Amino acid sequence: MEDEIKQVIVVRKDIKMGAGKIASQVAHASLMSFLKVNKTDKEIAKKWLDTGEKKIIVKTTSYDEFNEIKKALSEKRIPFEVIIDKGLTQVEPGTETAIGIGPFYEKKIDEVTSKLKLL
Amino acid sequence: MEDEIKQVIVVRKDIKMGAGKIASQVAHASLMSFLKVNKTDKEIAKKWLDTGEKKIIVKTTSYDEFNEIKKALSEKRIPFEVIIDKGLTQVEPGTETAIGIGPFYEKKIDEVTSKLKLL
Repeated sequence: MEDEIKQVIVVRKDIKMGAGKIASQVAHASLMSFLKVNKTDKEIAKKWLDTGEKKIIVKTTSYDEFNEIKKALSEKRIPFEVIIDKGLTQVEPGTETAIGIGPFYEKKIDEVTSKLKLL
Repeated sequence: MEDEIKQVIVVRKDIKMGAGKIASQVAHASLMSFLKVNKTDKEIAKKWLDTGEKKIIVKTTSYDEFNEIKKALSEKRIPFEVIIDKGLTQVEPGTETAIGIGPFYEKKIDEVTSKLKLL
């Protein structure tokens, strides 16, 4: 599997969110990042759908760590979307809650997220 | 808001899944059902994206209840996708874990899911 495609969703665990809130943020991140890639690189998006949409959910435990991930993704030009919550429930308005990464090449994403623990 | 559009994700709480597992099932259900609607009714799919992608996560507490939801959705011709897990982790292979509903008209979905509690 030289160039397997996956999506990784990073969830902030330094803010308090219930299971339903987390699930909705993850779903939002997954869809937003997919739609982005589907515009910029249809071939990768299609390959991901055709190969079972591998999706891994991981967590950061501080906002610093969360920001480092965003920075590294930008530097490596890996496509991602940051989810900013409207803050109607559970978190303050404008809170960043999650990052949707890819679908993109597994090896490239792993360079950034492999150190993060599964949610 | 005569015909507001939303998506509802139903998660089975009669099976044991951790927060990360739930989140991945919800994301999967959301994307699969979105892609279905995006093929069959592009206008609704686009409207949902353009209006902030309202997404509600609810739960069923028994498999019977889960199946009743599927039956009611079919009868009312509301678009949905059932997620069946490969069972590599946490659940048995072939386990139904979640239903992605819509995006579709809020009022129509509410006829089926308004009695379900938030996850």
